[in-house]
Amino acid sequence: MDTYKQVIVMRKFPSLRKGKYIAQGCHASLGAYHQADKKDILYWAASGYTKIVVYVDSLEKLSDLAGDCGNANIPCYLVEDAGRTEFPVPTFTALGIGPARSEDIDKITGHLPLF
Amino acid sequence: MDTYKQVIVMRKFPSLRKGKYIAQGCHASLGAYHQADKKDILYWAASGYTKIVVYVDSLEKLSDLAGDCGNANIPCYLVEDAGRTEFPVPTFTALGIGPARSEDIDKITGHLPLF
Repeated sequence: MDTYKQVIVMRKFPSLRKGKYIAQGCHASLGAYHQADKKDILYWAASGYTKIVVYVDSLEKLSDLAGDCGNANIPCYLVEDAGRTEFPVPTFTALGIGPARSEDIDKITGHLPLF
Repeated sequence: MDTYKQVIVMRKFPSLRKGKYIAQGCHASLGAYHQADKKDILYWAASGYTKIVVYVDSLEKLSDLAGDCGNANIPCYLVEDAGRTEFPVPTFTALGIGPARSEDIDKITGHLPLF
């Protein structure tokens, strides 16, 4: 049987509280969940809601990945922090991908390091 | 109008990868979301899915908070990591609370430090 997962791509910043990273990751996770295919969500639930967290070090890479997901027709959600607390201006911070077939997501994020 | 939020309580560990914290936080967020009242979810969406991440330093405190939520009838979800990767045994790692009225959650987690 195919395995399913959700991948959270975090944009790394020179200094950011852990809690802020977690909140951004949660936005990405829930945002992508809302975009996902209902059947994929059921398969994902059956496999224990696997979540993998990786990172990139630039906005370009983050938005390229969002584009790659769009081209591959994989649901994703790009998080923009409003810039009211830790960031001085609105800032893209994370990308949630899936849940979707692991094999499909791996083509896009398989090369990224674990966070 | 009442404000709504979700609070993620992380259990702090001496050393744990950031990505592992984020994944646990996302489990807590989605798990609590699934328990939440549908109307509260709509109010929460309208207020921009506010998420606050705080921490405790022991399992006792984490499970006490889960009990407090139960007593106050606030939806919550306690995350148990299966212990297959970074933890040697199954381990409770985080508690997702709400979305629910900020005022109600604050009675339970208002004293906890930001993570």
